[in-house]
Amino acid sequence: MNKPLILITNDDGIQAPGIRFLIEIMKDYGDIVVVAPNGPRSGSGHAISLESIISCKNISINQNINEYVCSGTPVDCVKLALNEILDRKPDLCVSGINHGSNSSVNVIYSGTMSAALEASLSGVPAIGFSLLDFSNNADFSESEIFVRQVAKRVLDHGLATGVALNINIPKSKTSEKIKGIKVCRQANAKWEEEFEKRIDPKGNKYYWLTGKFVNYDDKNDTDEWALSNHYVSLVPVQIDRTSYNIMPFLNNIFSDES
Amino acid sequence: MNKPLILITNDDGIQAPGIRFLIEIMKDYGDIVVVAPNGPRSGSGHAISLESIISCKNISINQNINEYVCSGTPVDCVKLALNEILDRKPDLCVSGINHGSNSSVNVIYSGTMSAALEASLSGVPAIGFSLLDFSNNADFSESEIFVRQVAKRVLDHGLATGVALNINIPKSKTSEKIKGIKVCRQANAKWEEEFEKRIDPKGNKYYWLTGKFVNYDDKNDTDEWALSNHYVSLVPVQIDRTSYNIMPFLNNIFSDES
Repeated sequence: MNKPLILITNDDGIQAPGIRFLIEIMKDYGDIVVVAPNGPRSGSGHAISLESIISCKNISINQNINEYVCSGTPVDCVKLALNEILDRKPDLCVSGINHGSNSSVNVIYSGTMSAALEASLSGVPAIGFSLLDFSNNADFSESEIFVRQVAKRVLDHGLATGVALNINIPKSKTSEKIKGIKVCRQANAKWEEEFEKRIDPKGNKYYWLTGKFVNYDDKNDTDEWALSNHYVSLVPVQIDRTSYNIMPFLNNIFSDES
Repeated sequence: MNKPLILITNDDGIQAPGIRFLIEIMKDYGDIVVVAPNGPRSGSGHAISLESIISCKNISINQNINEYVCSGTPVDCVKLALNEILDRKPDLCVSGINHGSNSSVNVIYSGTMSAALEASLSGVPAIGFSLLDFSNNADFSESEIFVRQVAKRVLDHGLATGVALNINIPKSKTSEKIKGIKVCRQANAKWEEEFEKRIDPKGNKYYWLTGKFVNYDDKNDTDEWALSNHYVSLVPVQIDRTSYNIMPFLNNIFSDES
């Protein structure tokens, strides 16, 4: 029997410590193919390259790992892998480990999670992993046991097409061990005061996107709650964006044709 | 009393015929401010500019319309409008009219719809409009009555925070008038065979993203059904990506800690 085929990608670029750490772990679970961007693509959401060409080439970083570096977005990487690079459908796609949180509303901006969702759309069980530490020197060591647990369960049980797992791992604390994994919903949160304004040498205004994260959701079934209570959060996210709850209201206000 | 304040954006760029048509219609419903990208941003999903600066300047295209052109993504445009440009929260955000479909799975790649969703996250009722015609010379005239109907209803009734409307309008047929508006769910569809491979002058492979749209969903409550039966489709879409249905399965497979 073939070993499982595992596709690995990310949005921080193929050289980021997070993906290098993930590759080392995932080698234990199957044959690895890495298809990842040539540099940082944080905040690329579900962007695809419609206006530009995409280049992609086989490179050698670690011995014995088959890796491809791609000029496009994380979603382009997954599309290329599934359509052009892999000779069979992978058994699992793992994306990350992201340097920084993809919890709550961050999921909508996340290239890491969009890559996982793109794989799920083709029926590939997919997981995005993120560590709540933006630093390039982030310490991923405490993540390992949870990456193994989640990957193993998903390899064993599969996932429904169109659903991917959004796993966020708290930053290490010297005072406390991570308590375990909580299945949660996406917290209701957003970014506020989002820009820093500057003046260029010619006197024109320009902006850097920045901002302050605000959580409006104080319930204990959310990813923000889990993370602030030192659990790993597991949120299943889906391709279907339909807001079913609001349909009766809409059917009502659009019922007369005036 | 103030007239409603209406923010207009798109992903085809500020000069695209679709947004120019939308501006002309929306002038009848309030004070207009346009904040839109400086060129095409199709397929930019919910991307934001984290790695680059954003410039934004006031320009004059139509007399009496206050317009800003922005170097960033459609979502950047909405963030800039809400945080830096507008002096009060708008009563409505309209995005489009997109040249081409944003029905079914296209919603996840759509800059048009991501802009609308970004506005909805701040509690601004938001609508994305798309016409099923990619052409730069698309005929938007049959769209007008539906744009007016939907905008008027949303101005009158509002929308829940975190929900936006995805409106797709069939291409004109000389043989048949559009039958009306259907409230639908997002069809289960995807793109297949997605790349065209080429060789550059130096002998290296590169790719253009292309592909074939495949609808797997033959039910009559979807946007694809509505559009192919010559209705306007209205799908409410939401910021919350949580897949609630799958949570019992996940609680089960993650219940033991082994």
